[in-house]
Parts: sequence; structure tokens; C-alpha cells
Amino acid sequence: MTDDPTLWAQRLEEAVVGLGANGDRSHDLAHAKRVLRTALALADGVEDQGEGPVDRLVLTAAAYLHDIVAIEKNDPRRSLASRLSAAKAREILGGLDFPAGRQDGVAHAIEAHSFSAGIAPRSLEARILQDADRMESLGAIGVARTFYVAGRLGSALFHDDDPLAFARPLDERAYALDHFFTKLLTLPATMTTAPGRAMAGERAELLRAFAEALAQEVSGAAAPGPRPARPSDGEAPSPLPVWPGSGTRTR
Amino acid sequence: MTDDPTLWAQRLEEAVVGLGANGDRSHDLAHAKRVLRTALALADGVEDQGEGPVDRLVLTAAAYLHDIVAIEKNDPRRSLASRLSAAKAREILGGLDFPAGRQDGVAHAIEAHSFSAGIAPRSLEARILQDADRMESLGAIGVARTFYVAGRLGSALFHDDDPLAFARPLDERAYALDHFFTKLLTLPATMTTAPGRAMAGERAELLRAFAEALAQEVSGAAAPGPRPARPSDGEAPSPLPVWPGSGTRTR
Repeated sequence: MTDDPTLWAQRLEEAVVGLGANGDRSHDLAHAKRVLRTALALADGVEDQGEGPVDRLVLTAAAYLHDIVAIEKNDPRRSLASRLSAAKAREILGGLDFPAGRQDGVAHAIEAHSFSAGIAPRSLEARILQDADRMESLGAIGVARTFYVAGRLGSALFHDDDPLAFARPLDERAYALDHFFTKLLTLPATMTTAPGRAMAGERAELLRAFAEALAQEVSGAAAPGPRPARPSDGEAPSPLPVWPGSGTRTR
Repeated sequence: MTDDPTLWAQRLEEAVVGLGANGDRSHDLAHAKRVLRTALALADGVEDQGEGPVDRLVLTAAAYLHDIVAIEKNDPRRSLASRLSAAKAREILGGLDFPAGRQDGVAHAIEAHSFSAGIAPRSLEARILQDADRMESLGAIGVARTFYVAGRLGSALFHDDDPLAFARPLDERAYALDHFFTKLLTLPATMTTAPGRAMAGERAELLRAFAEALAQEVSGAAAPGPRPARPSDGEAPSPLPVWPGSGTRTR
């Protein structure tokens, strides 16, 4: 059998077309393909920095199959999902005559990719898959997915009076925005490759800026344009980047 | 009966505590309160520019009650929601002994607030409520609400290969991000007050920047950091503001 990652990508894409068919479009085929693209970019970066080589065939198969068994976020069996996906991946790869000596590498990368499994990634491919999957929780894609999942689960968008939780405990089950602070902004520190850490740092900045812009809007933006100053118009310095369109107000 | 808007706000808040109880947290009490805050800010702006006076009691009641009858976005009866809400508002206000001479003003603002009703706003309060409600679809709040609603309805987040729809027709039922282009970015032009237009213009910038950052991420960001240039590294000028953290790549 061929070991060309691009040919295998086509074959695997056909094998996983049902991904996301349970209605969870935050883990559909498009997610798997984005994870693959990010993983391949990280693989380039890792090799450019002198580590490697990276087995791109293992990485390709692992990216396509890492969520093949989907378990919803609020399901108690969630922590089993990556182990179940690894087992199912072995089944699929066996049926497709995937090179036998590389199947263990794929299965390990898959079972180690999620937080909740608690399995340390032992290979470079496993580290890259983990970083690439976590990247999906950051940046604009991370913003979109956070609120999408909140819509599925029925939590509120944010705490209306204190969206950034200055004076209350964080509660990510109740407020989607809190998930930025309980989990997403901790992700850059969990990245296991240097290019992953760099990319994650950039995308975390976007999350912070988004949260700040949202808080400014929620705090009751005044109408822009010239008008007499009011006592509440005082500005406090903000440690966060200012978004385009988020106005000049601070919380 | 008092006609103090602040006292009525408390009374109305108690009357509408069930808002969003059908699980739609994009139209809950917090939404109503944000619309009120925005509406009052726009009222200040309108009066500062010499229009008015604005009846803040009418505006307060209309903001609390404008979504009192909730109909899901994909329901064919959706276009009736604002008329049904206006009728229900009359019932509630009658029961609360709300000043009789102001109930028509509240009902008109409510029935005219939504696009789908096709009723032109005849009063300043109706124009302000419409602008304030539409503001919720823009800015960071608009981003959050768009993807939240997509999660409820099960549409995809965006088209994976062509998120900004350069080479395909827009399809907002299939892709949440397309809703930015079919509807949200058209909103600033529909604003009926000058302060509403100014605020909407600022918040639309944030939507555009978000869409651009997302497209950059989706297009397969390369790992950041020093590495040899590749042929695909060429940069094209972007007409959109660059977000913090969105990197230097363009699509």
C-alpha cells in the first residue's frame, strides 16, 4: 500500500464523511481538516527548528480520525472519547489496509490528544496533534465554537452585570464567556511544541481582545459622536488591545 | 400612577422574568436590559443633537417587552412575533396600571421593531428601539449571538474552503458566518437615528475584522516564527482592519 499522506487524506476523508452527523458541527469533517492543516503547519515549524522528522502519514490519519467517536461535552463518558476514537481508528485503518507499522502511532496520537483522557503524548506526532486540536479553541475559530457550543447546551452568553467576572466566581456552565477564562486562555501554556506555543499566544490575544470589546458593549456604550461630557465618562487604562469598532470606552 | 421610568423598569423586570425560559438565551432578560441601556444612550445622543424630547417611560416599557412573545428564527410564524408581543404588552401594561395615554406608544414601538413585521416606525421612540435592538446583532455581542443561534439551529459555523464566499453564493441557513454578509453588515444602513448609525458603523467594523481573522485562521495559518520563506508566503493587501492575534497572513 502507498504511504503518501495526500492519497491517504482522500481515502480517509471518504471514511469519515459521517463525522458531525449527530448534529455537532463543532466537531465535523471541516474541524478535522482544519486540525490537519494546522498540524502540518506546526510540523513544518517543528522541523524548521531542528526537531523531527515528523511522520506526516501518521499525523494525517490521526487528524482525520481523532474525533471519530463523538461524545457531547456534558456527557459523563466524555473522558473515554479519545480512547474509543483510538480503538475505532484501528478498526478503520485495518479495514483500509493502512500501513501496519504506523497504526500504533496513529492510535497513540488520538488517545493522547484530549485533556480529559489524561494520557501524556509520547511521540512528536501526538504532541503536534494535541497542539493543533487545542488551537481550534483559540482565535476567531475558538470564539465561534465557544458560543456555538453554548447554543447547543443552552447556557447564557455571558454574565450581564459582570461579564469579565471581576466580582464573582467564574461559572463556565452558566456563562459561555467564562469558558475563555476557565479554560481557553490557559491553553497556550499547555502547548507542547514551540511553534504551537507561538501560534497559541497570538490567538489568545484575539480572545482577550474579544472579551474586552464585549464587556465594553455590555457595560452600556454611550452613543458615539460629540456631546457634553458626563461624570461617568472617565477613562481607565486597559491592559488589553483595543479592537477595531469597540469604541474608546473602557469598563 | 408614577411615570418614573426607573420605578417602572423594576416593575417590568418582575413582569418579564420568564423571558428566555424557552431556552433561547439570545432573547432573555439580559438582552432586554442591554437593549434598554443602548436605547437610553441613543436617546441622550438624539436629544444632544437637537431632536426630541424622547419619552423614556415609553422606551423603557417597550425595551422590556419587545420580545415578550418569542418565536424561533426558523419558525414560519416568526413575522408575527412583534405584533403578538405588542398585543401581549398591552395586556401586561393594562394589568400593571401603566399610564393609559402612553400604552399606544409602547405598542407601536414594539410592533415596528422587527424587520419581518414590515411596519415603519412612526415615533422617535419606535426608531430608537429599532436601532437599539439591531445594535445587538453587531459588535462582539453580535458575533456571540450569531454563533449561539447557529448552535441552537445546528447550522455549520462557516464554509470551510471559502468562508468569505468569494466564489460561491451566500447561504446563511447553512453557514453562520454568511449571516454577517446577508444581514448583519447591512444593518448600519437601516439605522433610523444619527447616533444609531454612528454606533452601528463602529460595531460593524468589529464584525468585518472578526470575519477576516477567522478566514485567515481557516486558510491554514502557517506556524509563526522564523523559518525559510515558501512560495505561498506572498502577502496581498487586505481592505479590513487587522485583529490583534490574527497574525500577518492574508487569505
